Amino acid sequence: MNSELESRIRQTGYRLYDLMEGEAGSIFSREYWVGKLFEWCMNSEPFKVQMLRFIDVFPYLRDTDAVIGHIQQYFSDPTLNFPSAVNWGIKYVAPSWMTSRIIAGSIGMNIAKVARQFIAGTSAKDSLPVLEKLRSSGLAFSIDLLGEAVVSEKEADGYAERYLQLFEFLDSAQSSWRPLGAVLGGLDWGHSPRVNVSIKPSAMYSQMNACAFEHSIEKSKERLRPILRRAVKAGAFVNFDMEHHGLKDLTFALHQSIMEEAEFGSYPHTGIVIQAYLRESEKDLERIIRWANQGGFHLTVRLVKGAYWDQEVIVAGQRNWPVPVFAVKSETDANFEHLARIILQNSNRLKLACASHNIRSISAVVEMAKEAGVAGEQIEFQVLYGMGQPVRNALHKAGLHVRVYCPVGEMLQGMAYLVRRLLENTANQSFLRQTFSQRLPKADLLRNPVDKLNKSLPGPPGAGLARHEGPPPESVGSEIAREAGHGVGPFTIEPVYDWSRSEHRRQFAAALNNVRERFPIQVPLQIGGYRIQTASGFASLNPNDSYETVGTVCSADIKEAELAIAAAKSAFPQWRDTPAQHRADCLFKAAASARLKRRELAALQVLEVGKTWSEADADVCEAIDYLEYYGREMLRRAAPRPMGQVPGETSFLLYEPRGVAVVIAPWNFPMAISTGMSSAAIVTGNTVVYKPASQSPVTGFMLNGIFEEAGLPRGVFNFVPGPGSSLGDVLTAHPDVALIAFTGSRDVGLHILAKAHENNERSAFVKNVVLEMGGKNAIIVDSDADLDEAVVYALHSAFGYQGQKCSACSRLIVVEDIYDRFVERLKAAAQSIGIGPVEFPQNFMGAVIEQAARDRILGYVEMGKNAGYPLFELSPVGRNGAHPHPAGNGWFVPLSIFTDVDPESRLAQEEIFGPVLAVIKVKDFDEALRVANGTQYALTGGVLSRSPANIRKARENFRTGNLYINRGCTGAIVGRHPFGGFKMSGLGSKAGGPDYLLHFMIARNIVENTVRKGYAPLEGAPPD
Amino acid sequence: MNSELESRIRQTGYRLYDLMEGEAGSIFSREYWVGKLFEWCMNSEPFKVQMLRFIDVFPYLRDTDAVIGHIQQYFSDPTLNFPSAVNWGIKYVAPSWMTSRIIAGSIGMNIAKVARQFIAGTSAKDSLPVLEKLRSSGLAFSIDLLGEAVVSEKEADGYAERYLQLFEFLDSAQSSWRPLGAVLGGLDWGHSPRVNVSIKPSAMYSQMNACAFEHSIEKSKERLRPILRRAVKAGAFVNFDMEHHGLKDLTFALHQSIMEEAEFGSYPHTGIVIQAYLRESEKDLERIIRWANQGGFHLTVRLVKGAYWDQEVIVAGQRNWPVPVFAVKSETDANFEHLARIILQNSNRLKLACASHNIRSISAVVEMAKEAGVAGEQIEFQVLYGMGQPVRNALHKAGLHVRVYCPVGEMLQGMAYLVRRLLENTANQSFLRQTFSQRLPKADLLRNPVDKLNKSLPGPPGAGLARHEGPPPESVGSEIAREAGHGVGPFTIEPVYDWSRSEHRRQFAAALNNVRERFPIQVPLQIGGYRIQTASGFASLNPNDSYETVGTVCSADIKEAELAIAAAKSAFPQWRDTPAQHRADCLFKAAASARLKRRELAALQVLEVGKTWSEADADVCEAIDYLEYYGREMLRRAAPRPMGQVPGETSFLLYEPRGVAVVIAPWNFPMAISTGMSSAAIVTGNTVVYKPASQSPVTGFMLNGIFEEAGLPRGVFNFVPGPGSSLGDVLTAHPDVALIAFTGSRDVGLHILAKAHENNERSAFVKNVVLEMGGKNAIIVDSDADLDEAVVYALHSAFGYQGQKCSACSRLIVVEDIYDRFVERLKAAAQSIGIGPVEFPQNFMGAVIEQAARDRILGYVEMGKNAGYPLFELSPVGRNGAHPHPAGNGWFVPLSIFTDVDPESRLAQEEIFGPVLAVIKVKDFDEALRVANGTQYALTGGVLSRSPANIRKARENFRTGNLYINRGCTGAIVGRHPFGGFKMSGLGSKAGGPDYLLHFMIARNIVENTVRKGYAPLEGAPPD
Repeated sequence: MNSELESRIRQTGYRLYDLMEGEAGSIFSREYWVGKLFEWCMNSEPFKVQMLRFIDVFPYLRDTDAVIGHIQQYFSDPTLNFPSAVNWGIKYVAPSWMTSRIIAGSIGMNIAKVARQFIAGTSAKDSLPVLEKLRSSGLAFSIDLLGEAVVSEKEADGYAERYLQLFEFLDSAQSSWRPLGAVLGGLDWGHSPRVNVSIKPSAMYSQMNACAFEHSIEKSKERLRPILRRAVKAGAFVNFDMEHHGLKDLTFALHQSIMEEAEFGSYPHTGIVIQAYLRESEKDLERIIRWANQGGFHLTVRLVKGAYWDQEVIVAGQRNWPVPVFAVKSETDANFEHLARIILQNSNRLKLACASHNIRSISAVVEMAKEAGVAGEQIEFQVLYGMGQPVRNALHKAGLHVRVYCPVGEMLQGMAYLVRRLLENTANQSFLRQTFSQRLPKADLLRNPVDKLNKSLPGPPGAGLARHEGPPPESVGSEIAREAGHGVGPFTIEPVYDWSRSEHRRQFAAALNNVRERFPIQVPLQIGGYRIQTASGFASLNPNDSYETVGTVCSADIKEAELAIAAAKSAFPQWRDTPAQHRADCLFKAAASARLKRRELAALQVLEVGKTWSEADADVCEAIDYLEYYGREMLRRAAPRPMGQVPGETSFLLYEPRGVAVVIAPWNFPMAISTGMSSAAIVTGNTVVYKPASQSPVTGFMLNGIFEEAGLPRGVFNFVPGPGSSLGDVLTAHPDVALIAFTGSRDVGLHILAKAHENNERSAFVKNVVLEMGGKNAIIVDSDADLDEAVVYALHSAFGYQGQKCSACSRLIVVEDIYDRFVERLKAAAQSIGIGPVEFPQNFMGAVIEQAARDRILGYVEMGKNAGYPLFELSPVGRNGAHPHPAGNGWFVPLSIFTDVDPESRLAQEEIFGPVLAVIKVKDFDEALRVANGTQYALTGGVLSRSPANIRKARENFRTGNLYINRGCTGAIVGRHPFGGFKMSGLGSKAGGPDYLLHFMIARNIVENTVRKGYAPLEGAPPD
Repeated sequence: MNSELESRIRQTGYRLYDLMEGEAGSIFSREYWVGKLFEWCMNSEPFKVQMLRFIDVFPYLRDTDAVIGHIQQYFSDPTLNFPSAVNWGIKYVAPSWMTSRIIAGSIGMNIAKVARQFIAGTSAKDSLPVLEKLRSSGLAFSIDLLGEAVVSEKEADGYAERYLQLFEFLDSAQSSWRPLGAVLGGLDWGHSPRVNVSIKPSAMYSQMNACAFEHSIEKSKERLRPILRRAVKAGAFVNFDMEHHGLKDLTFALHQSIMEEAEFGSYPHTGIVIQAYLRESEKDLERIIRWANQGGFHLTVRLVKGAYWDQEVIVAGQRNWPVPVFAVKSETDANFEHLARIILQNSNRLKLACASHNIRSISAVVEMAKEAGVAGEQIEFQVLYGMGQPVRNALHKAGLHVRVYCPVGEMLQGMAYLVRRLLENTANQSFLRQTFSQRLPKADLLRNPVDKLNKSLPGPPGAGLARHEGPPPESVGSEIAREAGHGVGPFTIEPVYDWSRSEHRRQFAAALNNVRERFPIQVPLQIGGYRIQTASGFASLNPNDSYETVGTVCSADIKEAELAIAAAKSAFPQWRDTPAQHRADCLFKAAASARLKRRELAALQVLEVGKTWSEADADVCEAIDYLEYYGREMLRRAAPRPMGQVPGETSFLLYEPRGVAVVIAPWNFPMAISTGMSSAAIVTGNTVVYKPASQSPVTGFMLNGIFEEAGLPRGVFNFVPGPGSSLGDVLTAHPDVALIAFTGSRDVGLHILAKAHENNERSAFVKNVVLEMGGKNAIIVDSDADLDEAVVYALHSAFGYQGQKCSACSRLIVVEDIYDRFVERLKAAAQSIGIGPVEFPQNFMGAVIEQAARDRILGYVEMGKNAGYPLFELSPVGRNGAHPHPAGNGWFVPLSIFTDVDPESRLAQEEIFGPVLAVIKVKDFDEALRVANGTQYALTGGVLSRSPANIRKARENFRTGNLYINRGCTGAIVGRHPFGGFKMSGLGSKAGGPDYLLHFMIARNIVENTVRKGYAPLEGAPPD
């Protein structure tokens, strides 16, 4: 940037500052409650957290008791040093007191004040005076309809209806509005519609899903079309708002797709948003420019910095994805100016809506526009309602075109918006805060962000940078790496595919075809390194189309089982004595091998066990995680551990394998759980006889191939598919077996356990049994649960993979206060999902694994019906699913939600392992906990609550192996969520956790007396 | 000390230095091999270690191959930077080469040279020229007969015979010797016998044992009396040498006891030794002076610094006893002068033999003697043969009376002596080294040690002090404390009684009487905090006298078992929710309570289960160790453990109890194992139903009392003695039981395991079974094993507590090269022990636990006899044991050693659990390992070898839960030796180790999504 321009930018900046002189930054004024609130938030991070959380939950608090109760829970922690004004009166107030009602009322009013600061009104009608006052001050507006998250088609319909009504209302209102800029033709400033509405694409389709990209666009357009049509009729401007990164490409594609329809192609008054904080925003912008040029489209680009920084960092951090946003605020600021220049350079197609309160950014746009010779009509400046009035007024005084972005809606629905604004204003890097609260020197505030960047970069990476606020995106497992202290890097999870990226969708679809071309896959046994064909065999079928044979599988009989055990036994001594580093390296190689064919492995699962694309992908990623994690865990355990420290003695504890391990795996996580159990056994030095589930032998065979490619010596891993009923007993009762690792049903698990110990006296080992069995998992929905989230979590936990996960939610325990609201939204949401063959990504639910499973599940549904419980049922031919294959081809069952279920009934007590959910109404949270704990299982559980006291109760008393608070109860991540339960769910071995490998090993203690003739060296070396 | 004296001491010192001028310190001369060796040792600690070890093993190496093999193993470690002269030729020499024979021969000669440096000759006759040459130079001598450790009465007889022959020989030789000092009367210098012999009291009785103090003295005197009689006849001087601290009081008492006999009371020519490095040496000296004054005795005190510093520090460190020696060398030097002054002040009774090569110490004695007016005849100066010739010559030139201490014996037997001398000469603080090798300034060397001490003390404790050499006596468990990071101190073991202290012997005898007075002790049940009497009951009898009823015990039936489980179940929730710190505190309180009645608890075991005093004491100490260790382990595990670290999520792993635990305990460690299993269950939050063994219910009842005193809430610990056959099944199969901890026999263990899992489907829990079962433990005796130690380790491991330990050695696998030598010494040693009621501490072995055990054991003996294996048998009426009670009263069995046993025979395969040892001959070490591993058990094992290669092989391939190298295979220490085996010995739970508590807990993972509306605080707090 040349220095002349830079100097003009600064001059403009100073001029704008001059114009602001005398204007107070009202939200920062300490005379007002809002100002005080901001001050407290800026002074105390813990207070800010609690305040944001309280504001978040506040609209759900239905009575004074609830308000007072939550205030006490959020703000009376004596370890937090809260402002005394906040503390005052909270601690000692019992909800029943008279004063408490006054306090609750006053707090309610104060939060309403905060909301009114940023929200123009509860409805368009209610907001009309505000809008008209703005217009009369010479300011344009854009209306944003606040709303709950759209979790069902019914809600999407409602949203669409509200948009239609909004246009209707504004269309009629605009007739009385004089265009701004005193020009003719009905357009503000001569070119801009007086009615301007921002639309959230996520509200257009409840099942919007980047994986089902085209489907999502088609469904969205169904609702968008009439709205856009109405807008065109009103001559209104429609902006496609941008939400989080995961919806970005969908949003752009939706805009382009509908504009490419003949009906709308020539309409010039639409716009999209570019978020400058996204690293890929420049590429996106260029693509849009190409599209506009090629198609001859005109549109407005609202250029923003971006309001979801925290969320983007969190999502990427949790998924181990590259963080899509810039880490340093100045990078975003610099990119903003860079993008503005590009937009200005393409003013033949694009108008620029500069949406920032930052005087420097605004001045840069003003001056770059001049330099580029872009006419003033091509640019407008947008500010948020209720924020930075001095800025907007100064811009207006400077003669610039100013539009105010006005959210409209109920407070309940505006909380997400409100929280974003509070975060924005109280962030250290907030321009408004720096200007009006911190009062930084103007010269600093007007500095070129590129200069700031250059200045801050020379330091050590990350140190002292002016970062965006938010948690640092640290990598997973750094603790493990510290403990391990060896060559390999720290454990990080294998990132699942980001389906918003088109290449992943394209390649996955190709993988499905490629895999299918190889059907039926021939699966031999593998014993002692030899592939073995047997005379008898069985077929593996596609659950969604049982006419399709995925594989033709050889079947092991007693003879082969014994051969496999003999092979494993003979390979054992050498494998045991192989250095741990080498064994771990084999796992790392296996991980690399699996990584190379991730798509193939996942595509196979879609067809062999009926997982959706993402469920299948997640399973393969989890398998890779086990390999990487257990490899590192072994290295951590490999070094002999000194015991005590006395002169004249060395004592070390070291771990060794147990011997031959039989691994009996389930079909529902056919790669992940097989890999987890097998790799744990292998890396600790055991040799394995692996029996895959008879429903997923082809996937099991892939695991065999992966271990082969990893260079495991012959006989270390033996693959023996076959019937569990006969083969299982032979394997588990065999005297040469030292270890059995089983994951599956309770009944089979207990049978194996009894079998394993029946004939111990004839065995060489007391067999150790690692057992993971079933669950009857509950999610508790508290009265203050965020229903936008609760509905989605419940739906995914209960019906993801047709409920065929041991972690699946099969009981929803709902506190009565919220029961009706929740159940209604849940049913509506369930009604909205697609059921059909899961190779089509729009189908959320597919067929169950096999005929027997279908029979069992339908039996439970029948049982529920007979008991007379109200039933919501969604048949396989859902409105959004592609139709399933003709009856009989796929093992489909309906999605079933029974409500008002008796917690003691079989429906609420027995593991169904299918898409059948029992909803149980309880009086309060304590009863919810009692009901939750009231089964024979203790595997997973969930709690959706915003009450710190109830969350604490759940931590203490909701006794399950895995408890998830404010999220779904499935999807444990290796290394982060050690998985497994107790009671009848298992023995507590915790797969993917730091103690898991211990079950696969025995410990030896080696003590050496180092004294010879009364003398001992100072230190002993550890044993080799 | 006045400065005038101090200045005279320095003058004398300089004078002595002048007299040394021109004399070379030959052992430090680099021209000689010995000098080179010393130099290398002083330069390299690792080399010194290996050299000492090689010299130690050298006499056992029977051929060239063995010599070369050991040289390669000891000196070819490439990580050790050995002198090239040593390295040269070693690495690449295979034993078969011609050169290797030359090298081996040369090394043998060189080691012989070193030995000849310090040893006057192989026998008195052989040494005579040396002795006479000394005398002709004007120097007196004292002869020390080197010998192997005396492990049997036969060897003690041999030793005594050698002393008698020595006096015979010297008596006849002395007739030709002119007294030194050219005086008349046959005495050197007019007062000192020409024949002077040092006697080792430990050689007088093979079973010398401080616990059986009076017995040991009586037995020693039986051999000493004829020797002393012969010495008196020869007019010879007899010195009672001092060995390690454990024998000190016995040695003094032996000297006084025999001198108090009328026959010897007036004989003036005996002496004892005072070691100045002992902190208590002044008190000892004062006691001796009192004794001499009261009885009118005359004696010589040989004042030494002390030669067992390393050993004393090691023994005290390992036993957690106060270190008896001074840590700082100057303290010893100062104490030496202080003690010398006291001796000089009592010259009416004591003569002083000043035994030091330190010129400062010598000068101080010379000048203090002058000051005290002690005649020169009252003082002599002793130097060691082969060390510090310049010193001895200077002393002689100065006209002082000098005596040379001359060891006489074979190299094999002189190794311990040789190693002590090498250590002494190469120690940093060695006066000779400082003088002749380091050549420190004389002024420094002559400085008053008190000044050095004062000067060095102001620094931080221990830092920079001129310490004795040797490993620092660090406290046990510091690592654990670091990990724990909480209020309580680091774990240290409860120190067993030092029976050399008379108060312990006296008080223990009293405790036996006190306990016995309460017999029969009435033992009720304790359930839910209530003592419950039952109609049926049984008696606990003294195994050594079955007519004595130790206790009358109520017996639980099915009803009471169920009541106890119900009580435990009802107490569980509250105990589970009790903070870990409180639960740990209960264990610490229980430990304190047990500590208060240690003697009572141990005395009871002597009478209830037939343990010797020390075995009983060790069991109680181990119980206390478990309480202290598991308490700390729980605190270490109590804090929720963060899992992974991603933004927007907190994840913690926390441990919880399983529920009701049934603890079924054995009788053989009735306090330790019961306490270990119970306290592990309790501290982790389980509630316990404890069934003591029916042979040790009274001890079990004591544990009940201890937990009661510790304030455990009602129902947390329930005490239900009763018949295992019926009660066991009820307890283990009960559906409310979550955990079973069992230690006992294989058959019962396997039965419990099957029973526990038989009806899991009716249970609330998949029961977790913690199982410790039997062993058929082997000790391997390698061809180069130190037989002095091997015999003792084998004897203690096999016959300690009558072989009734699961860790006991029941197979001795001996390499054929050493088989005959070893077996002969072993039998002789076995022949020497006492069998009889163990309340008399002279009995090493008592009765076995009960009639059924006796029958079983005698059956195996019969089986061995029938198989025709050579049998060594020692009947209960041993020569040293008090006679057992009349037949039938005590369940005595003979000690049996079968030799040449077939390793596959039942005798060598089945656990006998009694004093029956199978000795197996093998060709070589590899075969030894194969045989050792060749049973169904894998509990403990031992290896006695000085071959680094074989030790490494054993570490790798001797696969037992606990492997002990160069020590016995029993006596695991909590925290230092995690205990337990695999195969048919157990599931590998490792009691007293860092993983043990995990078996008593389940882990819960609690994950909280901390994101609200896209925002998450930086860090989450761990769950409460």
